[in-house]
Amino acid sequence: LRLAVIGAGSFGTAMATVAARNDNDVLLWAHDPRVADAISSTRSNPFYLPDVTLPDRVHATSSLDEAAAFSDTFFMIVPSQYYRGVLAELRNRTDGLLTVISGTKGIENETLERMSGVTRAVLGERLSCYGALSGPTFAAEASKGDPTAAVVASGDLECAQRIQHILSSATFRLYHSDDVVGVEIAGALKNVIAIAAGVLEGLGLGYNTTAALITRGLHEITRLGIALGGKPDTFAGLAGMGDLVLTCTGSLSRNRMLGVALGKGKTLSQFLAETRAVAEGVKTSKAARDLAEQHGIEMPITTEMYRVLYENESPTHALQRLMTRSLKAESSR
Amino acid sequence: LRLAVIGAGSFGTAMATVAARNDNDVLLWAHDPRVADAISSTRSNPFYLPDVTLPDRVHATSSLDEAAAFSDTFFMIVPSQYYRGVLAELRNRTDGLLTVISGTKGIENETLERMSGVTRAVLGERLSCYGALSGPTFAAEASKGDPTAAVVASGDLECAQRIQHILSSATFRLYHSDDVVGVEIAGALKNVIAIAAGVLEGLGLGYNTTAALITRGLHEITRLGIALGGKPDTFAGLAGMGDLVLTCTGSLSRNRMLGVALGKGKTLSQFLAETRAVAEGVKTSKAARDLAEQHGIEMPITTEMYRVLYENESPTHALQRLMTRSLKAESSR
Repeated sequence: LRLAVIGAGSFGTAMATVAARNDNDVLLWAHDPRVADAISSTRSNPFYLPDVTLPDRVHATSSLDEAAAFSDTFFMIVPSQYYRGVLAELRNRTDGLLTVISGTKGIENETLERMSGVTRAVLGERLSCYGALSGPTFAAEASKGDPTAAVVASGDLECAQRIQHILSSATFRLYHSDDVVGVEIAGALKNVIAIAAGVLEGLGLGYNTTAALITRGLHEITRLGIALGGKPDTFAGLAGMGDLVLTCTGSLSRNRMLGVALGKGKTLSQFLAETRAVAEGVKTSKAARDLAEQHGIEMPITTEMYRVLYENESPTHALQRLMTRSLKAESSR
Repeated sequence: LRLAVIGAGSFGTAMATVAARNDNDVLLWAHDPRVADAISSTRSNPFYLPDVTLPDRVHATSSLDEAAAFSDTFFMIVPSQYYRGVLAELRNRTDGLLTVISGTKGIENETLERMSGVTRAVLGERLSCYGALSGPTFAAEASKGDPTAAVVASGDLECAQRIQHILSSATFRLYHSDDVVGVEIAGALKNVIAIAAGVLEGLGLGYNTTAALITRGLHEITRLGIALGGKPDTFAGLAGMGDLVLTCTGSLSRNRMLGVALGKGKTLSQFLAETRAVAEGVKTSKAARDLAEQHGIEMPITTEMYRVLYENESPTHALQRLMTRSLKAESSR
């Protein structure tokens, strides 16, 4: 099969590698021509995934025309706030039915739409198959071939199975689910909790506090997810608990790195001035706060992170409130 | 209040510290007179919790007579296989009603009893209040005063509240639960998954694989716990997910250390010959396997760990089977 991976960050590059190892021909689209050129000349992605040699079946481009002409199956892995624009460009350059896999973990801020909703809005009748892929999948490890398991969620079983067939292998196991809402909400919201985990680290706190935060974090994500129509089991699964644990305890992700900076007294704008990486959790904390308000769901950790990020609240005060408030009762879902 | 903490390992010493900070007078009983002497002379526990200075209100002894005379409230934190014997000694040296808090995380191997059952069997009518304390509570952090949250489970709300009153503070928050079964099973079983997490580390695998293991591990613990009468929410809470995440991703616990050694090709007996620390997960894997068989519950990770520990199965083979088997379907509880 021919697959166009749209977005050549670390996760996009890793998924291109995984797909190519599975005997697919992959065109990897990079927004930045320098990234595409570097991939073509070095057979690796020195900007976002160094140390991984890309299989011969991966080629790179920065031309959306080329990407659109290459395949009718797009694996979208661009920052959530650019997803709609990029997908519209692809739509305008193609005709006929399209398959879209989303690896983007976020919520569009203005519309509060998840990527499935954005995809439907952009493609309408031309969308033949949509799957959201999520789970504990650090790019470097997945591309190296470390045993990795994730979920692909689709309302259409046949579509989920098609995506499984494209990407699943002995070291990259993909389970299907019909809970698109749950998988998308879990994938997006965990980045907010990851920022909070970073704040704890920045404040010099230990594993006990982080473990309590992760537990309560999954609790509030689950509450929101269920209110939006997601299924409880999804949040206890790979896309929920699995990805949350990975992001809060594994290597320092961009979201956790931001949290560490906040915990050490930096502001969001200071952090953003120093780094070009996108921390999805910043936008997601805003969207999640809005969704929580709309649905009358209490999300103490998310709310505190919103205040720290957007209202310059002190992380120490936020933490104090969390310790006395969010941990009130153990099992009030 | 006067509290006797029975067991002066790292967790016992930490709980003695937490209780003393809360204005209780604490007598800490150590099995080994050298430990009691060292505590008395250095005001710390150089064997099991160095770097922590004990509050003045903590005193140490290796005499069970003294411990029995000191209080009618015992906080039992001894290895599970010694719990019955030590508690019987205390019973024989006291009369009247007793309160028992259990911080022991394990299952008695011959009887497959949890500590609540052992306590009831030993004390009978003399047991006035029993609570199981569990959660993500690394000893060094809890005694340092890092924000820590745990659960105390009791069938008797008033008893749970009494224990909360003894131990809860701003930095050590104790939530009550009525699910003794769930809290005890979660606390015991997580040590088996921690050994498995260590095996993955020993084999050189990364965070993706560990996150999947933790997710599936909680799944099978939950299945067993529910079959035994536990409540699903407990496993999603601090004593379930929280403690599991801590033990599998935080500092190297004894159980994970054992797993690392196994993953690097050592056998259980080689490991035991080199260390005097008790890895509760070894005994628990056997008890859990027996319980799973009794109740017809599939516990693939626990079963594989049992084989690795007791039947010299190769960790690599065990892992291969897990990757192809336990991750079969995402949400089959």
